[in-house]
Amino acid sequence: MKRSAFYVSDGTGITAETLGHSLLSQFGSVEFSQTTIPYVQSNDLAREAVTRINQAAERDDAAPVVFSTLVHDDHREILHTCKGRVLDLFTAFLQPLEDELGVRSSHQVGQSHAIRDQQAYRIRINAVHFALDNDDGARTRHYDQADVILIGVSRSGKTPTCLYLALQFGLFAANYPLTEDDFDDLRLPDSLVPHKDKLFGLTINPDRLSAIRSERKAGSRYASPRQCEMEVRALQALYNKFNIPHLDATELSIEEISTRILAMKGLTRRLQ
Amino acid sequence: MKRSAFYVSDGTGITAETLGHSLLSQFGSVEFSQTTIPYVQSNDLAREAVTRINQAAERDDAAPVVFSTLVHDDHREILHTCKGRVLDLFTAFLQPLEDELGVRSSHQVGQSHAIRDQQAYRIRINAVHFALDNDDGARTRHYDQADVILIGVSRSGKTPTCLYLALQFGLFAANYPLTEDDFDDLRLPDSLVPHKDKLFGLTINPDRLSAIRSERKAGSRYASPRQCEMEVRALQALYNKFNIPHLDATELSIEEISTRILAMKGLTRRLQ
Repeated sequence: MKRSAFYVSDGTGITAETLGHSLLSQFGSVEFSQTTIPYVQSNDLAREAVTRINQAAERDDAAPVVFSTLVHDDHREILHTCKGRVLDLFTAFLQPLEDELGVRSSHQVGQSHAIRDQQAYRIRINAVHFALDNDDGARTRHYDQADVILIGVSRSGKTPTCLYLALQFGLFAANYPLTEDDFDDLRLPDSLVPHKDKLFGLTINPDRLSAIRSERKAGSRYASPRQCEMEVRALQALYNKFNIPHLDATELSIEEISTRILAMKGLTRRLQ
Repeated sequence: MKRSAFYVSDGTGITAETLGHSLLSQFGSVEFSQTTIPYVQSNDLAREAVTRINQAAERDDAAPVVFSTLVHDDHREILHTCKGRVLDLFTAFLQPLEDELGVRSSHQVGQSHAIRDQQAYRIRINAVHFALDNDDGARTRHYDQADVILIGVSRSGKTPTCLYLALQFGLFAANYPLTEDDFDDLRLPDSLVPHKDKLFGLTINPDRLSAIRSERKAGSRYASPRQCEMEVRALQALYNKFNIPHLDATELSIEEISTRILAMKGLTRRLQ
């Protein structure tokens, strides 16, 4: 069964998409063809959205599901004339919120994504540049500024996790790759010792690691199951020996890894 | 007026946060103290969440606002006993969705973030590494693989935008900094000419650019208002001359810049 889903927004559409993805993931048996219609900030654009939704309704011979974060009353009214099932986030929740807070909401268009003021923008940019400058053990002299230092073997997801921590939470996250040299005598690299409290370890299933490395260097010793298993086993021994909090990232998304690190290290985000 | 807001989830909490931020941004006059309680996957953890919410209710002498994406019936029931105003995303929308689709939802815990299967994970990781390898004009020989190549002056937001495009949409985004050499004779750098169709330009208000650059190199020629104005003016002339689609990023968040590029270039995302 194939159905259409639309995300309609006066802003980026990210809020509507995020909620829609969550809800649709509860219907594993249905395949959805998904379309985002962002920046609907006029009656004309709202009517255009209705036209596209109605075309899908006709093609599918079934009502599309429409997730809307439109806040302007006129635009919402137009959208609700479409032949889709409209799930209207603001209708559902703004009224109860107004009641609870005793305040009228501003109904301001294009407000939906919060990270927009200049201070937040700077925090984010600085965090991203910190992650880049301190990626892959490139530099270690700024570790006193780091909120967290991720360690693990090559290709275990350290870099994307650091970037996600920077973009989403404004955190200063460095990462340092552990290699055979560190495993031979089972000790922490010198540059990490003074910052032991900031360390967080990632582990990964050796077969998965081997598959990921093979994409990059097929047939190499680096990607061989034997090498991957050796590294992962030594890594685990190192985490145990130095009592380093760690996480198996094999089955987790980058969002999950990042939020678990936040919780396990008790980190305070710099961006809400 | 200060109120408490909670985001309660059986997963990362990102869906609840995203929706909550959108809704709360409509109440500019109220200041919220925000707390995320992720990974609530048992009755005990649900009861712990209730305790924390009730403590805030007592402290504030007002009901906290609680955004919940819990899907398990027992956990939801426990949460609803708290002294907060619970806005339950799944109660509000799952039932209408089940009716419309004619399917029972799975009510599966921890499903809420969709990007978790291995293929999606690989697309994301590869996109992030592409952005890093092709950052700041470092390499230009992989431009045939790029979905988009961002151009602009130094510190106009190219790198964070490329990383966001990679993490959020799985797109291969390179970036290339334009400098005085390019402006002198108003021509495109040789390495960009074969890829003209992939170019997208960022511009920025010169005063803002000067402020951002001053944080990095205060008092330098690079950060001077005069230099920034000269670069931005020449940049605009270059975009006009070569008819390059572009955007003023001054007042936009990274999400907004990214989604507008998607729309203006007609790019198809590799991740939903």
